[in-house]
Amino acid sequence: MKVNRLNRIISKLKEKGISQMLISDPASIFYLTGKMLDSGERFFALLIKDNGENKIFINSLFTVPEDLGAEKIWFNDEEDPCEIASRYIDSGKILGVDKNLPARFLLRLMELESASGYKNTSVCVDIVRACKDSEEIVLMKESSRVNDEAMRELKTLIRAGMTERELASQLRDIYASMGAYGYSFDPLVGFGECAAIGHYEAGNTMLSEGDCILIDMGCVKDGYCSDMTRTFFYKNVSDEHKKVYETVLKAQKAAEGMIKPGVRFCDIDKTARDIIEQAGYGDKFTHRLGHSIGIECHEFGDVSSVNENVVEEGMIFSIEPGIYIEGDVGVRIEDLVLVTQDGVEVLNHFDKELQIID
Amino acid sequence: MKVNRLNRIISKLKEKGISQMLISDPASIFYLTGKMLDSGERFFALLIKDNGENKIFINSLFTVPEDLGAEKIWFNDEEDPCEIASRYIDSGKILGVDKNLPARFLLRLMELESASGYKNTSVCVDIVRACKDSEEIVLMKESSRVNDEAMRELKTLIRAGMTERELASQLRDIYASMGAYGYSFDPLVGFGECAAIGHYEAGNTMLSEGDCILIDMGCVKDGYCSDMTRTFFYKNVSDEHKKVYETVLKAQKAAEGMIKPGVRFCDIDKTARDIIEQAGYGDKFTHRLGHSIGIECHEFGDVSSVNENVVEEGMIFSIEPGIYIEGDVGVRIEDLVLVTQDGVEVLNHFDKELQIID
Repeated sequence: MKVNRLNRIISKLKEKGISQMLISDPASIFYLTGKMLDSGERFFALLIKDNGENKIFINSLFTVPEDLGAEKIWFNDEEDPCEIASRYIDSGKILGVDKNLPARFLLRLMELESASGYKNTSVCVDIVRACKDSEEIVLMKESSRVNDEAMRELKTLIRAGMTERELASQLRDIYASMGAYGYSFDPLVGFGECAAIGHYEAGNTMLSEGDCILIDMGCVKDGYCSDMTRTFFYKNVSDEHKKVYETVLKAQKAAEGMIKPGVRFCDIDKTARDIIEQAGYGDKFTHRLGHSIGIECHEFGDVSSVNENVVEEGMIFSIEPGIYIEGDVGVRIEDLVLVTQDGVEVLNHFDKELQIID
Repeated sequence: MKVNRLNRIISKLKEKGISQMLISDPASIFYLTGKMLDSGERFFALLIKDNGENKIFINSLFTVPEDLGAEKIWFNDEEDPCEIASRYIDSGKILGVDKNLPARFLLRLMELESASGYKNTSVCVDIVRACKDSEEIVLMKESSRVNDEAMRELKTLIRAGMTERELASQLRDIYASMGAYGYSFDPLVGFGECAAIGHYEAGNTMLSEGDCILIDMGCVKDGYCSDMTRTFFYKNVSDEHKKVYETVLKAQKAAEGMIKPGVRFCDIDKTARDIIEQAGYGDKFTHRLGHSIGIECHEFGDVSSVNENVVEEGMIFSIEPGIYIEGDVGVRIEDLVLVTQDGVEVLNHFDKELQIID
């Protein structure tokens, strides 16, 4: 068990008057125990208590390391895991549960009168996970280093007439050759006007002269995610597209430049958005500026106009403004950034000045 | 809305005295409306009622087809979707919910006193989904046809010295070239003794003479899953390995051969298990014989010693016995089968007799 992380969570729970919580989110269990396990439909949960009597409930089908820092309570497919967990839950007190605890377990725990009440206390875990500790920062930097390298390699493969899907399909092997065995999300590759389509993955559009090439990609390395976007142009770039690119870049750099502890997420978003608006593209920047990232690609805390929280040291999130002109062009530039004691460190080092590929 | 499917679910709910259900499982919503949407952390649910006043709750960020067969109730990120759904739920009656409905929604619905009680009624949906209708059977056959073709193509790529991961990484493009743009699960490729490791994916083991080559793979085509395993041998096969192979094949064929409506799942499992036990490998067959499959790779209803239900016409599931000898060899042979009116139809046609690759 990562004791510091656990203690930070326990103290957040105490602030809410909660003394016990059942954690079932695999990413949060990994965060606390170092063990990532996809248990499918089977119950797998960590019960944490302010008195330190932590238990982890595991189906005997799975293998886990000896030392998870919590007593292991085994059960098999013929047993009722909620009934077993119930024995360890203090029935006279409220039980905090994960936001994602499936109804089949929550309703069964209620039926068994396992606790005096049930409360969604995910925020107590999520807010702790949002501030990365030194061990996590090393892993996040490594994941983004691999992502920089992979972008470099992928860029060399760009050829006239290839489709978005052909380009995207190279990425898995590139990551694997660097020791990263999964995507943090399916890569988004858009050529020309396809780059302007929201949530577009990669299709059969072929690359032609003058196209923009938008690549949004990330890997999972040793349990931690990266996420970066670059937009290139093929053979040439029109004056209008250049203006779009320079506007996005200016917005991106301005937002990154103002980050330090105490600044509000919404003000970072506003800085980028104002620059894009002033250039006349306000209605073409159609999404929030960024999202938190760590063990999961999208974590608690977004860089948006409605998040009035302030950034804190150790937080890692994306800064990814974009301009999308339907039927014409899409440009997005995205880095991950780490909030430091008195400023910011950009985790991506891949060049982001305008690049024309020949 | 697929009215026949909906009516079958409503009548299962009625048997349990339930008049309304909130369905949030994306696969079940796809089953009923034809729309597959991964809404991430956002609320997306279909409320079905015995009086036909069906509603679908959708965040305005998403686009859906005009005709979903249920009135669309839109909301945005600033609104409380549970409060909105609550207006349409009959607060004087019990609400059936999905087994996977996340706690953050269920607890909020409870707080709002949306219904007089809450019950996990997933089984009413799952049991209907288990019996595929004619439209689904066409799609399931097509998905398995692609899987057969893809196995044929993948087999031609097997070379001495290649790693499991190198072989597995070819599969995505093969499927894509056949119009199947996703895995139903990450492919499992095991060479030699690695084929004996449970839940092994694909590693850096290199192929050598005498190795078995276990390949367990499946795609998603037009929303429906395939899943097949074949085990080959490279260059030569020892007498012991041949005996293992023939035992698995005999068990597999015997299990398939006895399937018809009215036979119990546990008896199908026993038929295969007995043959493997009689050959002296009883303790080397370490998992259930199969699982149901459809929109999801693992659906309700497994072919195991504890499932005493009988199979019904339209059910589709896997038959996949295996023998795993630690440090030596692993053999599994898997087909998907469809229960017909008076027997069974095997959906995979890729040869399953012992094949030695030169």
